[in-house]
Amino acid sequence: MSDDTRARALVEAVTRRPGYTSSIGTVVLDARPGSVELALPRRPDLLQFSGAMHGGVIAGLADHAAGGAVTTALPEGRIGLTIDLGVTYLSAADGDRMVARARAVHIGTTIAVAHVDLYTGADDGGSERLCATARATFRVVDLSPEPTP
Amino acid sequence: MSDDTRARALVEAVTRRPGYTSSIGTVVLDARPGSVELALPRRPDLLQFSGAMHGGVIAGLADHAAGGAVTTALPEGRIGLTIDLGVTYLSAADGDRMVARARAVHIGTTIAVAHVDLYTGADDGGSERLCATARATFRVVDLSPEPTP
Amino acid sequence: MSDDTRARALVEAVTRRPGYTSSIGTVVLDARPGSVELALPRRPDLLQFSGAMHGGVIAGLADHAAGGAVTTALPEGRIGLTIDLGVTYLSAADGDRMVARARAVHIGTTIAVAHVDLYTGADDGGSERLCATARATFRVVDLSPEPTP
Amino acid sequence: MSDDTRARALVEAVTRRPGYTSSIGTVVLDARPGSVELALPRRPDLLQFSGAMHGGVIAGLADHAAGGAVTTALPEGRIGLTIDLGVTYLSAADGDRMVARARAVHIGTTIAVAHVDLYTGADDGGSERLCATARATFRVVDLSPEPTP
Repeated sequence: MSDDTRARALVEAVTRRPGYTSSIGTVVLDARPGSVELALPRRPDLLQFSGAMHGGVIAGLADHAAGGAVTTALPEGRIGLTIDLGVTYLSAADGDRMVARARAVHIGTTIAVAHVDLYTGADDGGSERLCATARATFRVVDLSPEPTP
Repeated sequence: MSDDTRARALVEAVTRRPGYTSSIGTVVLDARPGSVELALPRRPDLLQFSGAMHGGVIAGLADHAAGGAVTTALPEGRIGLTIDLGVTYLSAADGDRMVARARAVHIGTTIAVAHVDLYTGADDGGSERLCATARATFRVVDLSPEPTP
Repeated sequence: MSDDTRARALVEAVTRRPGYTSSIGTVVLDARPGSVELALPRRPDLLQFSGAMHGGVIAGLADHAAGGAVTTALPEGRIGLTIDLGVTYLSAADGDRMVARARAVHIGTTIAVAHVDLYTGADDGGSERLCATARATFRVVDLSPEPTP
Repeated sequence: MSDDTRARALVEAVTRRPGYTSSIGTVVLDARPGSVELALPRRPDLLQFSGAMHGGVIAGLADHAAGGAVTTALPEGRIGLTIDLGVTYLSAADGDRMVARARAVHIGTTIAVAHVDLYTGADDGGSERLCATARATFRVVDLSPEPTP
């Protein structure tokens, strides 16, 4: 299995697992070691009062994309747990979907960092506008083995 | 109507409106001018792979609480729009519910800032543990009038 | 030696050592385990073009105060190294001196966090105004032994 | 005067003016509209106890570079005042000098944002290592006229 194939399988698995990211409808567009691209289609239950995507939804997509970018760049069995997440909101996320593009900018033995650009745009990816940027810092830890059922 | 009553009515109205905050089940515990307390009960669709609340859900609750703390401290007709949201994750949000306590620390004519402490704990509020802290910066703007239907 | 005496001695020693904090004139007002108060008198070489203290000087004082708050709360031989520093600037630091009050809000085995409030005011501490708030996240590590000279 | 010439003149003027940035020895390597590159040579009074550049010095260089990137992209007579500065420290700034490369990522009518990468390296620019990244958010305001002397 190539590194790209493994990275994509990892991000798909974490994204599709029952829980927050799958319930809001997160779609994996691309995933390579150190780089992840996600999309989130607009849905009424993701909006704030103005009709744009809620800042928390944007923060969550940023966190998930950044975590994927970092974890796909780490050795197998190691994952990043978010310590700090900072999001700057630039304009209303009022398009049909949001796209998050994350890349790891630092992979250390104990700390990893990723940057994320978030775009709002049409479903077909036609016209995009940068609507937020984010930075996440991660503690690098061993993935605990699943408890035996 | 007292200031406290008006603050509570405002936060209740924004929280209950159809959209993200109502769909995830946000509960208003308290709201006064410059100070808001929210709760979010644990639900399977709010969790990450480890079974704790997802970082994005925590960020969203922080943003909403901070926005309430700021807006209730502003003159009527003015609201805060988030520019920057920073969340530091301290420990897993693995309790039955999360509680966010936000207070405005600066109310200017163009910029406002709020701090939020986020606790994970039991449903009865019995044993709480600080699991995250957040800081949000807001642009202060006029609330656009509702479009006539 | 009491905990308070040890905390103060530690912060004094780090602050007075030749280097940045001593060269800008940092004064230790108070230091206890988990809590540090520093002052920085106004000096022409610390100002920006408007005559207020430069944002970098404010960030440096915040970082130093936060590091002290965290390290005094850690077991001897362990120190905090800054991972993330976030500063929100609220108003011009145009007084005679700046005072930073930091307190540790989380002390973990690998991560520690401190909050800092920064005030601008008169030399006698008479009238203060909150001019910035900051949050710093630290990696907790063993203090390397001093190299033999 | 070309836009590049004007941008460089503006950043040079602000950097050389008596005050913090000139007193620490900041050098302008390049400045164009929306993009600024600064260098800061190592000096004993800029270091922390470990011998690396102090986190506050790094934050200050980031703030100054980001402010330059934003202000050179704004119409004449408008400047950016820092609201939020976030710095992530990746490794010790233990080289002969630090280089900051800032670029504006958003220029709005009221808010502007810049990203900064900070490198530690040799004086000749030979071998550089990313040692910090930063993000700064600015309020866009009219530059007040200089008071008549």
